Amino acid sequence: MDQQHVKPADIERTSMSIIETELEERGILLPPELAPVVKRVIHTTADFDYAENLRFTPRAVELGIKAMKSAPTIVTDTNMARSGVSKPTLQKLGGQVLCYMAEPEVAELAKRSGTTRAVASMDKALQSFEHPILAVGNAPTALLRLTERMEAGARPALVIGVPVGFVNVVESKERILAACERFSVPAIVAMGRKGGSNVAAAICNALLYSAANTLDPTARGWQ
Amino acid sequence: MDQQHVKPADIERTSMSIIETELEERGILLPPELAPVVKRVIHTTADFDYAENLRFTPRAVELGIKAMKSAPTIVTDTNMARSGVSKPTLQKLGGQVLCYMAEPEVAELAKRSGTTRAVASMDKALQSFEHPILAVGNAPTALLRLTERMEAGARPALVIGVPVGFVNVVESKERILAACERFSVPAIVAMGRKGGSNVAAAICNALLYSAANTLDPTARGWQ
Repeated sequence: MDQQHVKPADIERTSMSIIETELEERGILLPPELAPVVKRVIHTTADFDYAENLRFTPRAVELGIKAMKSAPTIVTDTNMARSGVSKPTLQKLGGQVLCYMAEPEVAELAKRSGTTRAVASMDKALQSFEHPILAVGNAPTALLRLTERMEAGARPALVIGVPVGFVNVVESKERILAACERFSVPAIVAMGRKGGSNVAAAICNALLYSAANTLDPTARGWQ
Repeated sequence: MDQQHVKPADIERTSMSIIETELEERGILLPPELAPVVKRVIHTTADFDYAENLRFTPRAVELGIKAMKSAPTIVTDTNMARSGVSKPTLQKLGGQVLCYMAEPEVAELAKRSGTTRAVASMDKALQSFEHPILAVGNAPTALLRLTERMEAGARPALVIGVPVGFVNVVESKERILAACERFSVPAIVAMGRKGGSNVAAAICNALLYSAANTLDPTARGWQ
């Protein structure tokens, strides 16, 4: 029964220390400002590939934390990612997380314009908010649409581009990263095929926890 | 714009065919009855490690599909996994997916007995339903509790044991697999550290889609 009585905070501390040790053993030295994000993604996936495939535009973590501090609106491309974002931490920061994928209006819009619901929901996000945080863990079409919208002037506060998959995924991530660099939009992108709703949520949470900790260093957000 | 107009069904078909080709290139030949589950997990994670680390008790897929066909109740250990289970497919089969983790009653129960909410929610699942399908993508404590409950006579219809992590995770999965084998409870378990809510949902969906397809071979469930 003992193992059923351990505290989640203790488990997390031990896990993070195991991750640090194993990164060291692999000869991977993370820049301190990126470490909280990379370590949380590895914590979520048990996959050390993310130490190699996560890319950050200049000051992306700093600017991401800043965005999380001021009543952020996060829009995800799956309800699964939305579920994974820490509600208690968001609440502390006066923020919200939305997903439009299941909305009949978005399905209708996608059908009418012969596109995907993910595209329609990114359009809705950029129509509803001036500088949303956009967390894409599933649909490469969402990233391609974002690239177009940024070319037309849209400026999200942060783009998290981590769809997973085998078709159009790799290219969509290369394109969003290039567009974000060009337009100085902060971005965190998992290059290659890997990613997912869980990774999108983990990156949001890493930034949210850091944002909440700098507001109140004694507090700690738990999902 | 072209890539924004591709159909999800076409993308999935292409993805599955890429996965088949790459499995072959790796010299991995999946038993046909296991292939839909393994391929869907790889589709969800882009991680071929799952072709090696997924374990199945005898006839687990067949019995899992059978359980999904008759108004299944799936109980997950995260709201994220619950979000990821295909609602349209569940609806067709007259089933439901529940998660007790955010219920005040479960938090209270966990606090009173000095255990985790995951343990309390597994207890609630086994109290509320005679043969639930239990999908654990996060908490090793849930699997340890399930092992105890099975020793005391509980018989879930199926156990999906795929928590992710660095502390107690590997051991909890070895123990649940051994217990399921001993008590002839169908189980699908990801050995080692890897897993997650996305993997738990993907396994549920693979079984749900197969169940729905045998009822109506022209239909196809989409998340």
